[in-house]
Amino acid sequence: MPRIKLTIAYDGTDFVGWQRQADGDSVQQILEEKLEVLLKQPVSLHGSGRTDAGVHAQGMVAHFDSPMTLPLKAYRDGLNGLLPTTIAVQNAEEVSDDFHARFQAKGKWYRYSLFCSPVRSPQHCRTSWHLKRPLDHEAMAQAAGLLVGTHDFAAFRNAQCDAKSTIREIYSVALTPSDQELHIDVQGSGFLRNMIRMIAGTLVEVGQGKRTPDQVAEMLRSGHSDQHRLTAPPQGLSLMRVWY
Amino acid sequence: MPRIKLTIAYDGTDFVGWQRQADGDSVQQILEEKLEVLLKQPVSLHGSGRTDAGVHAQGMVAHFDSPMTLPLKAYRDGLNGLLPTTIAVQNAEEVSDDFHARFQAKGKWYRYSLFCSPVRSPQHCRTSWHLKRPLDHEAMAQAAGLLVGTHDFAAFRNAQCDAKSTIREIYSVALTPSDQELHIDVQGSGFLRNMIRMIAGTLVEVGQGKRTPDQVAEMLRSGHSDQHRLTAPPQGLSLMRVWY
Repeated sequence: MPRIKLTIAYDGTDFVGWQRQADGDSVQQILEEKLEVLLKQPVSLHGSGRTDAGVHAQGMVAHFDSPMTLPLKAYRDGLNGLLPTTIAVQNAEEVSDDFHARFQAKGKWYRYSLFCSPVRSPQHCRTSWHLKRPLDHEAMAQAAGLLVGTHDFAAFRNAQCDAKSTIREIYSVALTPSDQELHIDVQGSGFLRNMIRMIAGTLVEVGQGKRTPDQVAEMLRSGHSDQHRLTAPPQGLSLMRVWY
Repeated sequence: MPRIKLTIAYDGTDFVGWQRQADGDSVQQILEEKLEVLLKQPVSLHGSGRTDAGVHAQGMVAHFDSPMTLPLKAYRDGLNGLLPTTIAVQNAEEVSDDFHARFQAKGKWYRYSLFCSPVRSPQHCRTSWHLKRPLDHEAMAQAAGLLVGTHDFAAFRNAQCDAKSTIREIYSVALTPSDQELHIDVQGSGFLRNMIRMIAGTLVEVGQGKRTPDQVAEMLRSGHSDQHRLTAPPQGLSLMRVWY
């Protein structure tokens, strides 16, 4: 049974997220259904992690054990022929039997996209967070710099997050403006639940002058926030890449 | 009654097109409904022309006579507060009583977007035409050059098109590659029904080696096509701008 690693892109607008759920279509469930059609038997697909409802991916990784040996292109093209246009397998590779999409992930790159303009853009509404007023990029870059390194990110996780340790390492946070868009690219060893969306929300508050970079430093030191924390909406987020 | 000119952007994915129709939501109908809410009485909105189901716009223009005199920003922000996120008024201006969005349009700019890659991209599936194989850009540019000028475009219209004259002037056709995308930007005095999508379909056939630039020249000379004509799918098309 060859173990196959898939790299998957999806537009998360119409899905309840990566993971199977009782209500609504998840990306994992649709992929497992199509794998069953392709391979004529049920297959379990293991993703590198969850993405929330409405979150996108350009490079989600998942693996499964194939009950048949097909040419690698046949997995990719066979699945793409069955999947809706909002999900596409970008690549299929054979990996060793001890590869695990979740447990062996060494790092991830997420992008959060902001669209800053007095008027919203229908062309960007599914893939970014619309903000009417200009942001102070310099203050945001200063706060972003503080996040880099190994810190206790307890202040940047959702109340439902049940991770035992809240220590994570962020390799880089880059802010890239382009026309009316601002991309926040975050690379790190791994992330707590809602961590990137809370980082994006916090950086936006800094850009709006509602929070200072010093307060962000304090959130990292104390492990909690003295204020209401803003979680950026899901449609601005995209999982770009997973490293092994 | 001030006459108001609106510049409107929309993502056409979920609409039956610009124009009111019996079945499904049109952009015009939704705008007229929201204008009625804002202005407390029914208002007729006149667009610069139709767009087909699934076609997008970044700069559709329409006018109406307002039964109230509001600050111009109130039309824009008032409508945007009522409209779904897939439609947004970009600008509202007061124009003279003899302005007409359709009859006074001097030119239009349409963009047709292709996405060329062995694998489709969910991030581009709502806004471009996916083609698996690379295209011959040089042959396409040669054919595109032939379209520029005043010609009989009878070979580039839908069978349902009832325009009396099929003579139109194209000011420019520009092909711009960017990563895996190829934009076909067409500017002209006005267009026949499906003309841009048939131009895009024809240029793609040239890019695929299925049709020669000489055959395109013959289509312009003869006013008809000797072959099946390919109409590019609607989601790749966007009305960028209308000039007055």
